[in-house]
Amino acid sequence: MHDKQMNVLRAEPGHGRGGGGQRPIMLAIAGDSGTGKTTLTKGLVDALGPDRITSVAADDYHRYDRNERKSLPFTPLHPKCNYIDIMEQHLQHLAFGQPILKPVYNHDTGMLDRPEYVEPREFVIIEGLLPLHTKMARACFDISVYLDPPEELRIAWKLSRDTKKRGYTEDEVRADLKKREPESERFIRPQRERADIVVRFAPIEERGETVNDPLSAKLILRPTIDHPELHQILGDDTNEAMHMTLSRTEGGKPADAVHIHSYAKPEITTKVEQAIWDQLGVDAPLPESLGRLDNDSDGRDEPLALTQLLLLYHLIQAQEALAGAGAGAGVDGD
Amino acid sequence: MHDKQMNVLRAEPGHGRGGGGQRPIMLAIAGDSGTGKTTLTKGLVDALGPDRITSVAADDYHRYDRNERKSLPFTPLHPKCNYIDIMEQHLQHLAFGQPILKPVYNHDTGMLDRPEYVEPREFVIIEGLLPLHTKMARACFDISVYLDPPEELRIAWKLSRDTKKRGYTEDEVRADLKKREPESERFIRPQRERADIVVRFAPIEERGETVNDPLSAKLILRPTIDHPELHQILGDDTNEAMHMTLSRTEGGKPADAVHIHSYAKPEITTKVEQAIWDQLGVDAPLPESLGRLDNDSDGRDEPLALTQLLLLYHLIQAQEALAGAGAGAGVDGD
Repeated sequence: MHDKQMNVLRAEPGHGRGGGGQRPIMLAIAGDSGTGKTTLTKGLVDALGPDRITSVAADDYHRYDRNERKSLPFTPLHPKCNYIDIMEQHLQHLAFGQPILKPVYNHDTGMLDRPEYVEPREFVIIEGLLPLHTKMARACFDISVYLDPPEELRIAWKLSRDTKKRGYTEDEVRADLKKREPESERFIRPQRERADIVVRFAPIEERGETVNDPLSAKLILRPTIDHPELHQILGDDTNEAMHMTLSRTEGGKPADAVHIHSYAKPEITTKVEQAIWDQLGVDAPLPESLGRLDNDSDGRDEPLALTQLLLLYHLIQAQEALAGAGAGAGVDGD
Repeated sequence: MHDKQMNVLRAEPGHGRGGGGQRPIMLAIAGDSGTGKTTLTKGLVDALGPDRITSVAADDYHRYDRNERKSLPFTPLHPKCNYIDIMEQHLQHLAFGQPILKPVYNHDTGMLDRPEYVEPREFVIIEGLLPLHTKMARACFDISVYLDPPEELRIAWKLSRDTKKRGYTEDEVRADLKKREPESERFIRPQRERADIVVRFAPIEERGETVNDPLSAKLILRPTIDHPELHQILGDDTNEAMHMTLSRTEGGKPADAVHIHSYAKPEITTKVEQAIWDQLGVDAPLPESLGRLDNDSDGRDEPLALTQLLLLYHLIQAQEALAGAGAGAGVDGD
């Protein structure tokens, strides 16, 4: 199948409706190693519950195990180090509601393990290094996100995770980062211009904040998908929590920039969150799992919560649009 | 995709022609455990060479490892014990010339190992317990074979292999055979009526032969594919090696029955083999790998060689027909 066929088939109302209902809504979360993909994903999975949403790690499509990679001239960031064609194949199956036998890369042992049978749910998240690398892969997604923290912050996050959870020393992580940099530039960062939403968690330097302070978020919203009507939601009184400006992407394309401030008072961020949630018309309270950081703190990170909420908005909105298109097409056809 | 769509797409001239040329010719070799699938397959792979033909074991689609199966109420013969849907998916990909990430069942350890990247060649053989179980799987094949030795012979072969190569005791194999019998009857044997060719290696009881003597072969050729013009080839002087009679399948459907005798003189079998090979018009000598048994003997088993040659004939003939259809369609379309 060509990517264009995929786009056409996916646009067809009711396509993929079988015993399992309409086709899944597919969300890509792309970003370099240590950019917070897992943390962002977890809040969404917890909000919708494992009966409604599945997440797949694109790292599972690694072609070589850790030992084999030692003698190779490239890092896991290189497309040649991954079964990109098989990932595309599996994305197509998932996008049409079909199961896959997903390979498994074990981050603890560095080995390629026994594959897992994965059935898509209503929503599927693919998070990893290269989900937006090819045209065909991009054609499979309804919503795409690129995580783009400042390099200093990413290094701090990666050091912390790889030394605490993956058994590497700090020197090993730093040497690895250096080796990966040319491939980050060549293969990972070009995905930023392909995403519907670019998320940048960062300290606000003008306020003297560092990477150890609570982070603000800047979201670049490209007009490639329909974003919520934030202009209506964001009044003068919510400016402290969040504001929106007309902006450009790094590649120079027009986009909205949404700033979510870490220092906003909870009563104001809650008001914004509730307003976004209300736009969806969902008969359920705002999910409590949003904004949970991947550490021991019980606190809620408001910029993370608002970012996750925006993605949740898109997931639910895309599903409603698909259901509506199906119903509408049925009427037209009669 | 539905099986009918698959049939239509496969019939379309030139479908699957991309960088890699026309779509592969797909051969199913189905049969119970210990029926000689591997021996039959090996001669074909050796004849064409690994650059032109790939074989895939349907056993690789086992859903559970050996340990997990111990607590299950069914054996590996049961469709529930296999990822039949994933096998169907992979057959479709292979049939259109696309690669798959094939699961791996390790017969030595009983474990499910790291999957393997498999690219189809000009010819693909799928050999295993259930390749003809579903309509969709059957729609993927150009030629299908069912191996049907008498039960006494199958038990002897299975005992020999499982005790020598797979580390079981004779008692374990016999207990296993007993446990499997209801599922053999329910799932494996019904595939016999679905195959284009049913192969039965057996001693000729009327001649007082036993399972330890060289075996004759009886091939049931259903008119579902175009078989070689054996009537023209088999003259009175070759009757001793091979003869053909009008017959019926076990299910009562009309078919040709070809008898290949173990006691035929090599000069006569060679004559028949050469005549079948000449019908193909291939500019190469008759492959020498045919008829090799899976033991230490250097001898050539003529009934096995003739059976493999017939399958080779079908593989090459199907490929030529596809190429011809593609060329013809091009002329029609202009």
